[in-house]
Amino acid sequence: MSEDINKVSPNNTEQIVLSIDAMGGDLGATAVIAGMQVFFKQNQDVKFIVHGDEVEIKRLLSKYSSLSSSCEIRHCDEAVGMDDKPSHVMRHGKNTSMWSSIESVRDKQAQAAVSCGNTGALMAVSMIRLRKAPGINRPAIAILWPSENPQGSNIMLDVGADIRAEASDLLQYALMGVSYARNGLDVKRPRIGLLNVGTEEHKGRVELKEAHERIAEQAEKANYEFVGFVEGGDIPSDKVDVIVTDGFTGNVALKAAEGTATQVRKLLRQTFKQTPLAMLGALLAYGALRKLSIKIDPRRSNGGVFLGLNGTVVKSHGGADANGFAAAINLAYRLAKNDFTGRLAARVTSGSAPAETVTSKT
Amino acid sequence: MSEDINKVSPNNTEQIVLSIDAMGGDLGATAVIAGMQVFFKQNQDVKFIVHGDEVEIKRLLSKYSSLSSSCEIRHCDEAVGMDDKPSHVMRHGKNTSMWSSIESVRDKQAQAAVSCGNTGALMAVSMIRLRKAPGINRPAIAILWPSENPQGSNIMLDVGADIRAEASDLLQYALMGVSYARNGLDVKRPRIGLLNVGTEEHKGRVELKEAHERIAEQAEKANYEFVGFVEGGDIPSDKVDVIVTDGFTGNVALKAAEGTATQVRKLLRQTFKQTPLAMLGALLAYGALRKLSIKIDPRRSNGGVFLGLNGTVVKSHGGADANGFAAAINLAYRLAKNDFTGRLAARVTSGSAPAETVTSKT
Repeated sequence: MSEDINKVSPNNTEQIVLSIDAMGGDLGATAVIAGMQVFFKQNQDVKFIVHGDEVEIKRLLSKYSSLSSSCEIRHCDEAVGMDDKPSHVMRHGKNTSMWSSIESVRDKQAQAAVSCGNTGALMAVSMIRLRKAPGINRPAIAILWPSENPQGSNIMLDVGADIRAEASDLLQYALMGVSYARNGLDVKRPRIGLLNVGTEEHKGRVELKEAHERIAEQAEKANYEFVGFVEGGDIPSDKVDVIVTDGFTGNVALKAAEGTATQVRKLLRQTFKQTPLAMLGALLAYGALRKLSIKIDPRRSNGGVFLGLNGTVVKSHGGADANGFAAAINLAYRLAKNDFTGRLAARVTSGSAPAETVTSKT
Repeated sequence: MSEDINKVSPNNTEQIVLSIDAMGGDLGATAVIAGMQVFFKQNQDVKFIVHGDEVEIKRLLSKYSSLSSSCEIRHCDEAVGMDDKPSHVMRHGKNTSMWSSIESVRDKQAQAAVSCGNTGALMAVSMIRLRKAPGINRPAIAILWPSENPQGSNIMLDVGADIRAEASDLLQYALMGVSYARNGLDVKRPRIGLLNVGTEEHKGRVELKEAHERIAEQAEKANYEFVGFVEGGDIPSDKVDVIVTDGFTGNVALKAAEGTATQVRKLLRQTFKQTPLAMLGALLAYGALRKLSIKIDPRRSNGGVFLGLNGTVVKSHGGADANGFAAAINLAYRLAKNDFTGRLAARVTSGSAPAETVTSKT
């Protein structure tokens, strides 16, 4: 049952190959290639398949000869725009770098894909090309939420793959979240919270009461701690490691929190322009303030992961710079190294089945 | 149809009487009475009925002879605790200051009640004693969300009165929100947004699509602008004045944002302890930083209003200090002065009915 990430899995000795969509994001291929170089300086044990405009990619890679020799370029004529509708990309996106990057995972040439293209389109392409993993009803998008926990982040899912979730889906989210916490954040026995409007057990919607029971039932077998209902204020707390909710609520909560962080950053800037003394103070505290500003910049919380597909897809934030994109690559690398896709499927299949039929050890 | 707040309404010349629950809140009667004094210094055109422990209230009022002569004390043996369950208070709360404060509104002795007691209990007592206004299906709790708009706040509702909302309820929330924006914030032609996970019209849950149509239909007649779907990140923006959502989503969004603000305040404090230079900088910028810290303190966003009952009830934050409570009193005064309860009922009744049957001018 345990998913000790130090355990040698069959994939651990395999060459890790990551599929990179070079064309998405607000900053374009420049930030992507620069991010690859930031990662590569720390870790050369990786190969890349890079999808996008060959001329531009070659030009950008020419600065980094060592990285360049670990890259294979797949030329694509088109790129998905940040405002392209998912339905349009599904029908007409075959020649885009995004589509091509997912194909490499589908064809088992790469263990994971990383893109900073538009979330809706990436989810749509991933769904139709990779398909749902066996036993999964609704895939989910999981994000890392800056928290007071030792690992620095909590996991929240779903934040927008699907606007609905039944009790059985919420149980699957819990099991997928546990697997992600182990393989992505190295939390041995994750604590799960179910998002609600109050912490009393009788409160909330019908599906939440049922999910509460079902997630509690699986806790011992699947080796997690269920802390029960949590509230919106607990999301960044150290009470939980994984917060489970439907994609509608998760998406609104995420964006409301991002909006608040953005608002506070603006107020902070205004504050230091108010008086000459404040300006001088800001000058003295410049280094520390800059670190804070980066910490609370919503664009920096990076690396949403699509869970429940036949393949690992990491969505980097559209506004990510080189360091942000490097963090997303690092997450993809780590998940690939731990054979996350295989373990997740095994976990959910065993967790969703009645206890007596479980035989596989995941 | 217009609700010009400068228009003389029958109530405008009436003596305004506010019913105050003196015993709720984390800081107790001390903060409540001090808050009354803060308000009273600005505005003596008001009488108070003060509910709670007579000895303590008299002692606290003895410092303020002018305020004291505008107060009538109603002794209550009990007080509702912050952790008391609403169901318990409904059955056994008759002798509490909270219950008594609502009774004064029910008996038409006061135009509005203000309490900083626990929200669930206050909503429960308000519901059973004041009852729903004619035509209202689900009452709502509306809060002021710090925003970039000239009025400094947007209105969001529902943030937790009910975990469900059908399309017809969301339409009623929109109409109630419009009335509140006019009478509480002086926004002549409020802009309404419907909270969703994307801004495309075809997206989201079924009830949201239906609500989108119905709120759009009423816009001209009820004199508001409907900006359509908005996302979580738009809540503090200057795109909208009123954000409409169900109480589950609204509550989670509010608490997630409060959690983020609290987290940032903590990080800010840590930032200024990092280096001697940062500490010196903080010292120089102390005044400006203190203002910022107060601005982003979630306990300061004050004055949730219960909408859709036969009477106005303002819920002040449990952690409110004297200034926070004074802000809540000011809101209650303003709403009472504008005969908010009467106008709201008229607006919702006309807004929910088919256009051709509307004859009343509200």
